[in-house]
Amino acid sequence: MAKTVTAKAHTNIALVKYWGKKDAALMIPQNGSISLTLDHFYTQTSVTFDAHLSADQVYFNHQLLPAAKAARISRFLDLVRHRSGQATFATVQTENHVPTSAGLASSASGFAALAGAASRAAGLRLDAAGLSRLARRGSGSATRSIFGGFVEWHAGHDDQSSYAEVLQDPVNWDIQMIAVVLKATQKPISSTDGMARVVATSPYYPAWVTTAETDLKRMRQAIIARDLTAVGQIAETNAMRMHALNLSADPAFNYFTADTLTAIQAVSDLRSHGINCYYTLDAGPNVKIICAGQDTNVIMTRLQQHFDADQLIVAKPGPGITITEK
Amino acid sequence: MAKTVTAKAHTNIALVKYWGKKDAALMIPQNGSISLTLDHFYTQTSVTFDAHLSADQVYFNHQLLPAAKAARISRFLDLVRHRSGQATFATVQTENHVPTSAGLASSASGFAALAGAASRAAGLRLDAAGLSRLARRGSGSATRSIFGGFVEWHAGHDDQSSYAEVLQDPVNWDIQMIAVVLKATQKPISSTDGMARVVATSPYYPAWVTTAETDLKRMRQAIIARDLTAVGQIAETNAMRMHALNLSADPAFNYFTADTLTAIQAVSDLRSHGINCYYTLDAGPNVKIICAGQDTNVIMTRLQQHFDADQLIVAKPGPGITITEK
Repeated sequence: MAKTVTAKAHTNIALVKYWGKKDAALMIPQNGSISLTLDHFYTQTSVTFDAHLSADQVYFNHQLLPAAKAARISRFLDLVRHRSGQATFATVQTENHVPTSAGLASSASGFAALAGAASRAAGLRLDAAGLSRLARRGSGSATRSIFGGFVEWHAGHDDQSSYAEVLQDPVNWDIQMIAVVLKATQKPISSTDGMARVVATSPYYPAWVTTAETDLKRMRQAIIARDLTAVGQIAETNAMRMHALNLSADPAFNYFTADTLTAIQAVSDLRSHGINCYYTLDAGPNVKIICAGQDTNVIMTRLQQHFDADQLIVAKPGPGITITEK
Repeated sequence: MAKTVTAKAHTNIALVKYWGKKDAALMIPQNGSISLTLDHFYTQTSVTFDAHLSADQVYFNHQLLPAAKAARISRFLDLVRHRSGQATFATVQTENHVPTSAGLASSASGFAALAGAASRAAGLRLDAAGLSRLARRGSGSATRSIFGGFVEWHAGHDDQSSYAEVLQDPVNWDIQMIAVVLKATQKPISSTDGMARVVATSPYYPAWVTTAETDLKRMRQAIIARDLTAVGQIAETNAMRMHALNLSADPAFNYFTADTLTAIQAVSDLRSHGINCYYTLDAGPNVKIICAGQDTNVIMTRLQQHFDADQLIVAKPGPGITITEK
């Protein structure tokens, strides 16, 4: 019987965003990014290569996926098979520990866990940087989910030079995020298509790449200094500049909903009352609030004027990937 | 008794936006702009210089304004007095024919009408370009409201070279706007302060100035060709790139409300059903829909799913300023 390898990886939220590919096939980004891995949201995935199978079998939260829905995972397994010489199909069991339909970057934890489990099950022995490079091929943000705490993904220029590494882990710092999980509406455009449209049509894109480089430098310094105010300000401005790119595309698009505007306004109001908190948004309506643990109660109380308690999730810095064999 | 001069000027909506000053004192913009003057919204203002007055008396919709609220108008009258040698104070009676609290650029029609009435009452005989230059000193968008139909404001580089002129009037073309007048919330920042913050802090601002130049060329051609699709597409993209600047400022701001997002989505939905309509937005939540008169009913029906009938105002191309003495 072939061995089963299980990997557990956590999601991450970018503080300096990745938005735009330089090379879509190799998933080389236009600019580097910095993220915080979160403890609350993770994916656990087991992979077993099995000579008896005539096709990959992918179970998502205990449900067998039809081949069309498993195609992206099978293509990723093809890459692992190609590198390892492993020739058989695999059973993949993946469990997503993210609130249902939260839309919280499950591809980051998902492809990080798959990279860890599939590569080890196929007999590859990759170090952390190698896992990061492999995860990148599944989903850009997965590049960072190999690591815990604060993580930087170096944009690089080819497969070898584009990988993430730890900036600071353990974090040892009272910084956290509160995720405001908003009602999912139909996404106007996928992040892959959205960023491609931005790169192709936004007159602001070259300035984004330049400003991201500046933000990376400033964010590294802010993290080293454990300066929550600086981390928050840089992250908020950077996130809005990413969303500004979407408005400036042709045709324009945006991921905001009415609830997004309400949550952003709540953070601004809290800040004008002296609470040190900042928001960031990815390619969806959810708002993530960067703050200190000591301010959790006052922020939650304010947000509960607009949102249900189960829409508000406190997440602390989380660990890097773990891989176990049995 | 001194003579009374009355001027009537209509508001205008920019199709290629003015956003950012090169010279705040002279109100020289960073980039040129193109607008459509609308028939539905106008200001009528009468000015009488009167040696018996010991201060300017400004009546707004028949109510005497306190001096603090009339200060901007008095400063404008100072400019007219300085140029004309007229030494007395004035009575100003102004009526704004814009739906209450519609927030529809009343400073454009207001300062255009004031420039027309005050200059003539003070004995100045300005041609249309001269009136446009004078109106500019009151409010940037007023520069364009001297003229009817499609109007271009040349950015220029000094007082003499920064003025508007007609691109096409009469329009002779079935193009109109439907104004969606949304509930006024507290404006996050005035347009004057907003554009100043953008010029000072947005990394995208230089690209905006370049893209506006391109949009001006394309918009002129689209107007000459009477190509509603091209006018709409250029206007919509240009407006969103202006709002993208606001998101990219530090700190970021935006003028969108939940209703703004709803109206924008309604226009996108209509377009995906084959209705040729486009949206534009200025420094406020209201949405203006560019369309042909023949599509009024289908657009109104769709919008009435979300908005009351009295929030929807159909406006046709409007005329230039008229000035009468008595």
